[in-house]
Amino acid sequence: MNYYKTLSKEALAAEKSALESAYAAACLAKLNLDMSRGKPSEEQLDLSRGLLDELSSTSELVIDGQNAGNYGCPEGLRVARQLFGELLGVNKDQVLVSGSSSLNLMFDVLSHGFVRGMQGESPWSKQSQAHRLRWLCPAPGYDRHFALSDYFGFENVAVTMRDTGPDMDAVEDLVKDPSVKGIWCVPRFSNPTGIVYSDEVVKRFAALKPAASDFRILWDNAYCVHAFYDNAPQVANIFEYVGTKDLVYSFASTSKITFAGAGIACIAASKHDLADVMVSTGIERVCSDKISQLAHALYLPDRTRIEAHMKQIAEVLRPKFSLVEEVLSRELGPLDIAQWTHPQGGYFVSFDGERGSAKEIVKLCKDAGLQLTNAGATWPGGFDAADTNIRIAPSYPSLEELSRALDLFVLCTKLQAARAALRAL
Amino acid sequence: MNYYKTLSKEALAAEKSALESAYAAACLAKLNLDMSRGKPSEEQLDLSRGLLDELSSTSELVIDGQNAGNYGCPEGLRVARQLFGELLGVNKDQVLVSGSSSLNLMFDVLSHGFVRGMQGESPWSKQSQAHRLRWLCPAPGYDRHFALSDYFGFENVAVTMRDTGPDMDAVEDLVKDPSVKGIWCVPRFSNPTGIVYSDEVVKRFAALKPAASDFRILWDNAYCVHAFYDNAPQVANIFEYVGTKDLVYSFASTSKITFAGAGIACIAASKHDLADVMVSTGIERVCSDKISQLAHALYLPDRTRIEAHMKQIAEVLRPKFSLVEEVLSRELGPLDIAQWTHPQGGYFVSFDGERGSAKEIVKLCKDAGLQLTNAGATWPGGFDAADTNIRIAPSYPSLEELSRALDLFVLCTKLQAARAALRAL
Repeated sequence: MNYYKTLSKEALAAEKSALESAYAAACLAKLNLDMSRGKPSEEQLDLSRGLLDELSSTSELVIDGQNAGNYGCPEGLRVARQLFGELLGVNKDQVLVSGSSSLNLMFDVLSHGFVRGMQGESPWSKQSQAHRLRWLCPAPGYDRHFALSDYFGFENVAVTMRDTGPDMDAVEDLVKDPSVKGIWCVPRFSNPTGIVYSDEVVKRFAALKPAASDFRILWDNAYCVHAFYDNAPQVANIFEYVGTKDLVYSFASTSKITFAGAGIACIAASKHDLADVMVSTGIERVCSDKISQLAHALYLPDRTRIEAHMKQIAEVLRPKFSLVEEVLSRELGPLDIAQWTHPQGGYFVSFDGERGSAKEIVKLCKDAGLQLTNAGATWPGGFDAADTNIRIAPSYPSLEELSRALDLFVLCTKLQAARAALRAL
Repeated sequence: MNYYKTLSKEALAAEKSALESAYAAACLAKLNLDMSRGKPSEEQLDLSRGLLDELSSTSELVIDGQNAGNYGCPEGLRVARQLFGELLGVNKDQVLVSGSSSLNLMFDVLSHGFVRGMQGESPWSKQSQAHRLRWLCPAPGYDRHFALSDYFGFENVAVTMRDTGPDMDAVEDLVKDPSVKGIWCVPRFSNPTGIVYSDEVVKRFAALKPAASDFRILWDNAYCVHAFYDNAPQVANIFEYVGTKDLVYSFASTSKITFAGAGIACIAASKHDLADVMVSTGIERVCSDKISQLAHALYLPDRTRIEAHMKQIAEVLRPKFSLVEEVLSRELGPLDIAQWTHPQGGYFVSFDGERGSAKEIVKLCKDAGLQLTNAGATWPGGFDAADTNIRIAPSYPSLEELSRALDLFVLCTKLQAARAALRAL
């Protein structure tokens, strides 16, 4: 039971007063820290500096008959397709490598459906004139995903997120509606909960029978090799179950393997779906930056090399996530006023306070100099009806900064809870 | 007058027979050359290899307070914005640097108008439900431009291209129609004619009073510093005339300055238009590859350095364009069966044969192993009503290959003309 609700009014008032004093002192310390996004730290980025040594003015730029320095190969260099094929467990012919941003490629897929239409279906821009189309959003989830489907006019429909993945009973029921055109998924180390989809959930996704033939699963495998521990749970390969069906567009990038925003990115899909979206990307650009693709393929030539590289990155990230767990457990565990996730990879911890607490905690933090992701951002439309969820992104700060940030965070959480308990009396 | 039409039937038949024999011999030589696109040659690309030495594992990646290796700066690094600002004659605050492809940024602007709507206007996807929207296409022009506006459902309307730019009387008249939403322009060394817009044309563009408030000029300054000669004509700076009006989206890239498809690209626009399109690009991607932006800004820090670099490139390109002029003049000039342009920069020569000749010439070349841009590609919908225009792209082949290609091209042109003259008898 909520510790503050067990106190007498006097004891609670005294506790709140002590927390207010501590908070006032914290404000004076003028912390200035941004933990709002999943950004790599300097220390982490430095691990990828070797990438910058791969190419020089004397390098061979033609690889496997393909010239990285000239137009052509809109599907990406074969060596880069091969690399992502290994990461995602598909044949390289099912991979398009393009640009530095997987989010941009998700935009491209939605734009393709909206402007051109999926596989000859009527474009969503036309279908939506008759009635609003819908997109499924497991929540809490990734705000930039939700912003994309919202941008294209979809009604974002929240689906409950469980420890094993989205509520599949709900998903299977919702896709019976032909106005439902897709769903966002982050199958491994989901943003922000860090959970990994169970094999059963992956199988049920692969077996979906949506009413709309232009329904697609957008499978953002952003953290496919981003574990903190060797024995962290793996996610099943959805392509093994889905066969040749045109159902899944999968995405990955090296933004959190090499340089953030300056990596390489890919789409993997069935052959027909890949050819279909390339009609649109072929209009959109002549080809992508293959110099960066070549440097990446030389630096990280195969899965083994990537996994070795990711172990080094895990050494930087693991202590930060351990510290989050340690501080939250020690400071909040006994008070029974919050829950949080215990990810074994990825970039986030999902925190849930009491009902109606999240906005107030985030504001208290902000006023004391700690910027968190806006409360509600993990829900479609930025609206968390219960106002409980906060996304904690511990990757960017140093351990020392993170420690101060967490001290402030737990202080604000306690203060909010004490204030709320007093108000409720 | 067409030489072949001056001949007697017997003389013409003999001439044609000789050309057929020469063509049969040329086919046996099994040329295998692709001159269909404006691709840089290996020799030209080698001039930019220094770019690959700019960054190494020990480089400072933070410049001017901005970290090229991490998320952030969706508007691009300040140093890269400054560089394009100098090239395009605008303040760096009016520049968005993003990705490697200016075509992709043109797509982004059209996509913004289509999905979101320009500056709060109704999205084109909605407006087009009531009646088809139109886009102006000076022709001959760039096939990838026409493909973009076609993709978004516009009716592409051809506008006559003159030596000084598009027929402005026609443009001024057409923009009185509120269903006309934009126009494609390549103001310097236009693709494919190589002409440079006159000051008067630029001023008339800046002074346009389109009926549609969401009409925009897409000003693709692809060849802004791509002259073969020091005294080649400059194009006036449209932003000097347009003032603060929201009328022009301008584009440039380094694809033909450094590596093709692996350079950096920009949009320049009024402050309001730039902020407006960034609502959409901000949904589309977190940020662009700033490692590439940093390398470019270090390699080509200012306009002076770029111009020196472009002089080296001109040394490679100039002899190729001179050879085109020399061979066409020598072989076709006396026959009076074709006209062509004499560009002082850019990547193309625009060739016009007799009415109804282009498709046949291109097919003859293709059958003998020389791939040219498809006849008609320089017109909206790929339809050149007069069937005269062929785009010659001499940048990629070596001088020796180009010489053989031109020999074949003039042979095919003569053969087509002789055949046509005989058919007409």
